[in-house]
Amino acid sequence: MDEKGENWKLTLAYDGTDFHGWQVQPNQPTIQGELSDAIYRIVGERVLPQGSGRTDAGVHALAQVASCLLAAPIPPANLQRALNRSLPASIRVLAAEIAPIGFHARHSATSKTYEYRIFRDDLCSPFLARYAYALNWPLDLEAMTLAAAQVIGEHDFSSFAANDPDRNVRDENPNSQPSFVRTIHNSSWDMEGNLLIYRVTGSGFLHHMVRNLVGTFLDVGRGNLAAAAIAEILAAKTRSAAGSTAPARGLFLVDVRY
Amino acid sequence: MDEKGENWKLTLAYDGTDFHGWQVQPNQPTIQGELSDAIYRIVGERVLPQGSGRTDAGVHALAQVASCLLAAPIPPANLQRALNRSLPASIRVLAAEIAPIGFHARHSATSKTYEYRIFRDDLCSPFLARYAYALNWPLDLEAMTLAAAQVIGEHDFSSFAANDPDRNVRDENPNSQPSFVRTIHNSSWDMEGNLLIYRVTGSGFLHHMVRNLVGTFLDVGRGNLAAAAIAEILAAKTRSAAGSTAPARGLFLVDVRY
Repeated sequence: MDEKGENWKLTLAYDGTDFHGWQVQPNQPTIQGELSDAIYRIVGERVLPQGSGRTDAGVHALAQVASCLLAAPIPPANLQRALNRSLPASIRVLAAEIAPIGFHARHSATSKTYEYRIFRDDLCSPFLARYAYALNWPLDLEAMTLAAAQVIGEHDFSSFAANDPDRNVRDENPNSQPSFVRTIHNSSWDMEGNLLIYRVTGSGFLHHMVRNLVGTFLDVGRGNLAAAAIAEILAAKTRSAAGSTAPARGLFLVDVRY
Repeated sequence: MDEKGENWKLTLAYDGTDFHGWQVQPNQPTIQGELSDAIYRIVGERVLPQGSGRTDAGVHALAQVASCLLAAPIPPANLQRALNRSLPASIRVLAAEIAPIGFHARHSATSKTYEYRIFRDDLCSPFLARYAYALNWPLDLEAMTLAAAQVIGEHDFSSFAANDPDRNVRDENPNSQPSFVRTIHNSSWDMEGNLLIYRVTGSGFLHHMVRNLVGTFLDVGRGNLAAAAIAEILAAKTRSAAGSTAPARGLFLVDVRY
């Protein structure tokens, strides 16, 4: 450990139901706020861990990554155990590792993967209700698959970005250039049991981008929009061209790569 | 349908996390209250459906049964569908059936089965945290099994009943005689994956009885109490003789027989 202390990489899973999203907000429970408070209780240092990206209220994570510098020397296993004792049960630290000093959870990320889960049956279990969007309309899965494939590659995703009053807020990365161009590596729909799952991996995602993609693909699935229209929606570069925002509860951040 | 209308048997699953238990209370969300409100919205009749028993705040149900009389003629499938549209997603109607006029969800019940789920590993998923009690201390499962077997049969369960100020409240059935005698048919512990599950079937249960049994069996599992002490605790007929009350979140009402 040098004078500045160690740089930490924390991998977190959380149930987003009871939180107002990742980012700290006054008088609201947030993941970042709970993590910051737990670290303060353990080592007495007030830090604001940086996440790989913000997740909205109600959005879940199987493996969100956060980074922060801590002066206190503490063995990784001890920090993980202490955090899991101090945090609410709805947030778990899956791993606590010492990272190279230049590592930053957001700036160093090379790709991220999200899943969106739709329950496709008559009766959605009350124990699944917080973790899936229950939707039992007929859906044309073939058309949705064609539509999803059209966003693969480098595109300007303005049409799928939230209409935030503050331009910077549109972007998960407030320090980056205000560009709406992102590269999508994979984008596909799969049926697994009674869950229809959209999986998307990309260089990064704009605010609400995955939920807006899902809402638009669902319009295609219901026959309200042709699969081929996705290219036109991308070209329009305006939020009003795309479909509605799918509910937060179906969305999971599942992986961040570095 | 006669003049009094039909008698209904409703089978419900619910996530008890966000409710102040089954029984209707002023200005608090309860399962009974939500069900009553949903019925009112659908048929315009203000009824208070009777449950097979009260579940406490935070306790879940895989198959709670409720009964009520409704004057309005409505096909069972339509009532089920309308209720599921009207109720919060955390309460689902698994079945809506017309029952004989003498059927009463509580008085007609012949046995009930509860499960108590304990998560036995280092890191309890945040998605399981509402539905299990995470406990990673060493436990002597053999001793707990011996202890659980001792409550099988007809016993006075005063030692395992809540110390409620109102005697009637101790009993799930306020209309019955204030007897603390219940018959337990099955009482056992099983390890299933990383869940340790207590299953108990009996003629009926006093308020907090399953949670007090589990808390006491856990004392046995930790070596603080001999398995043979259960007989003495039953004989003492006083709440202070038994162990603590296990947390509500691990408890599920799983079956009611008629």
